[in-house]
Amino acid sequence: MTVATHADETHARVPLDRLLTPRSIAIVGASDKPGALGASVLANLDRAGFAGPIHLVNPKRETIGQRRCVATIDDLPEGIDVAVLAIPRTAVLDVMAALARRRVGAAVLFAAGFAEDGPQGIADQQEIARIAHEAGMIVEGPNCLGLFNFRDNIPLTFIEMPEAKATGDRRVGIISQSGAMAAVLATTLIARDVPLASYVSTGNEAVCGVEDFIDHAIDDAGVAVIGMIVEQFRKPQRFLQAARAARVRGKQIILLHPGSSEAGRKSAATHTGALAGDYQVMRVLAENAGVIFAETLEELGDMVEIALRCPRLPERGTAIVAESGAFKALMLDQCEREGLYLPPLS
Amino acid sequence: MTVATHADETHARVPLDRLLTPRSIAIVGASDKPGALGASVLANLDRAGFAGPIHLVNPKRETIGQRRCVATIDDLPEGIDVAVLAIPRTAVLDVMAALARRRVGAAVLFAAGFAEDGPQGIADQQEIARIAHEAGMIVEGPNCLGLFNFRDNIPLTFIEMPEAKATGDRRVGIISQSGAMAAVLATTLIARDVPLASYVSTGNEAVCGVEDFIDHAIDDAGVAVIGMIVEQFRKPQRFLQAARAARVRGKQIILLHPGSSEAGRKSAATHTGALAGDYQVMRVLAENAGVIFAETLEELGDMVEIALRCPRLPERGTAIVAESGAFKALMLDQCEREGLYLPPLS
Repeated sequence: MTVATHADETHARVPLDRLLTPRSIAIVGASDKPGALGASVLANLDRAGFAGPIHLVNPKRETIGQRRCVATIDDLPEGIDVAVLAIPRTAVLDVMAALARRRVGAAVLFAAGFAEDGPQGIADQQEIARIAHEAGMIVEGPNCLGLFNFRDNIPLTFIEMPEAKATGDRRVGIISQSGAMAAVLATTLIARDVPLASYVSTGNEAVCGVEDFIDHAIDDAGVAVIGMIVEQFRKPQRFLQAARAARVRGKQIILLHPGSSEAGRKSAATHTGALAGDYQVMRVLAENAGVIFAETLEELGDMVEIALRCPRLPERGTAIVAESGAFKALMLDQCEREGLYLPPLS
Repeated sequence: MTVATHADETHARVPLDRLLTPRSIAIVGASDKPGALGASVLANLDRAGFAGPIHLVNPKRETIGQRRCVATIDDLPEGIDVAVLAIPRTAVLDVMAALARRRVGAAVLFAAGFAEDGPQGIADQQEIARIAHEAGMIVEGPNCLGLFNFRDNIPLTFIEMPEAKATGDRRVGIISQSGAMAAVLATTLIARDVPLASYVSTGNEAVCGVEDFIDHAIDDAGVAVIGMIVEQFRKPQRFLQAARAARVRGKQIILLHPGSSEAGRKSAATHTGALAGDYQVMRVLAENAGVIFAETLEELGDMVEIALRCPRLPERGTAIVAESGAFKALMLDQCEREGLYLPPLS
C-alpha cells in the first residue's frame, strides 16, 4: 500500500442518501423466476414492505406479479433514487448510460467480470466510472452483493436475510468489500440481537469505495460501531483521516483486513481487482488511528458486539462467570496464554 | 500428574454393558413436574421410545403419567440393569445401599457435593465406592450429567438432545469428565451429521473413570474416533496403555485437556475433586501414544469430524475451495501463519 496521498485521492464527501435511503427504486432485469437475481431483489423488497414506488424493467414482460413492467429504461420516470441492475455483465454499460439520461441517483451493480477480469474489464469499469462522474451518479459495485438498510428496512440485495428485530440508538454499521462476508457478519449479529444500521458491500468500487461509506457512517449519529472487511484501501489517507475522526467522536472501527500473506495479497488482486500493498505499514498506521484489527470473521463479530455493548471496558482485570467447571478451567488456561490478569474477587 | 503406576491403578476391565445398554431402567426420584430432573429423564426416555421396562420410585406418588410408582427401592424387582438417581445429595448413600440389596447393575448419580466439596463429601464418596465395589455395581458420577447411547437411542440424562439421525459403521464416542462439555460437543456433532456412538460424562468418578470407558470404546468395533474432555486422569498409566491400544487398532483419540495453567489446575481440583499434575509431562507421553490434543472445544469438534471423515489425510499439501474471494484471502493468510504448503494445482 502506498500511504502517500495520490493525486486522485479526493477528499470530497459523497452524499449517499439516495443509495442508502431511497424513496423510489427501479429493478432492471426484474423477474419472477425463482432463483433469478431480479426475482430475489423484488421478493426481498416486498417481504420488507418497501412503501415507495418499485419500477420494474424487463423487455419481455408486461407485468410481474401485480406490477407493470416497462420495456426500457427510457420508459422510466425521471429521477428515481436507485436502480438495482440484475442483468448480465454485457448489458451494464448501455444500461448505465440510459440510467444517466433518466437522472437516476444511484446504481447497484451485481455483475462481475470487470477490473478483476483483465484489460477489457478494466476498461469497461473505467467507462462505468466516467458515466457516473459525468452524471453525478452514486455507484455500488460492480461485483457486489448490494446493501441492506436495517433501520428503514430497505434491502437492495438478492441475499435473503433473517429479520433484524433489535433496535436502538447505538447501532453497528457494516462496510465490506466482500459481499459474502458482509452478509455472514450481518446474519451472525442479527442472531445475537445486535442492532444494525446497515451493511454495504462495495465490490470493485468503480466509483464509491469503503472510504465514502465510512465517512457517511461517521456522520450518522445512530452508528456507534463500524465493522469493516477490506482487502485494499484505494484511498488509504482518507481512511486514516476517517479513523481519526471516528475516534474523536467516540466511534469504534473494527477491521478484518485479509492480505497479511503474500498469497492473500495476490488473491485480493484477482478478487476485486484491488492491489494490496504493505500490510504491516497499514496496520501500524490504522492502529495508531484507533482501529482494532480482527484476525477472523468470528473474532470480528465478537469484537463488534463487545464494542457496542461495552463502549468502555472495565479496566481492573478479568473475571470469569461459568456454569461448567471444565469451561472455567479452559478459560483460565486461555487467560494465562493471553496474559489476562484475574484479580481475586473482593 | 504422577505417571508411575499407583498401587490402586487396577487394570481390570469393567464390564459396562448394563450401564451403556440397559434392558431395564429405574428412575429414583421420578417426577412429572416440568423442570424436575426426574421428569426430564423420563421425558427423554419416552421421547426416545425406550422399549424395556421403566420403573419409577417416588414415595409421594402412586402413578406418574400412565406408569405406576413404587414407594421404596425395596419394592423394585431384583436385578434391574440401571438406576438413575434424580435425588438430593443427602439421600444418595441410603439409596445406594438399597440398590445394592436389589442387585441393581449400575447407578447414574447426578448429585454434586461430594469429593469436590470438602472432607465430608470425600468421605461420602468413598462410601459410595465401597458399596459399589462390594456389590459389583457400576457407578457413573456423582456430579455428572449421565450419558446418551445414540446407537440404541437410550438417554440416561436430564439433558435434552436434538435427534441424532446420522448412522454408520464408524462412529464417534465421547468420553468426558465434564457433562456440560460432553453435551455441547455431542450437540455440535449432531448438527454436522457426524454419527455418534455415545457420550458419557464421568463427573467425580467415584467408581468408574474415563479409563474404564475408553477401554470399552476401544473394544467397540463401531467406534472409530474417541473425543475426550479430561481435567485429570486418575489412572494415567491405564489411559496411556489404552491410547497405544487405540493406535494399534487404527482408532484416533482426540483430547481436550484443560489445566495447562496453574489457575486451571486449581479450578479442576474444586470442580470434580481431581488433582491435576504435570500437564506437559502428560502431554508428551500422550502425544507419543498417538493422542491428538485440541486447544478449544470448537477445535475438538472440528478434529473429531475430520478424523472420522478422513481417516487418512492426504499428504501432498493443502488446497482451498472457496465461493468468496475474501474468504479465500483470509484462508491464505491462515495457511501462511500455520506453515501449510499450498502446491500449484496440476
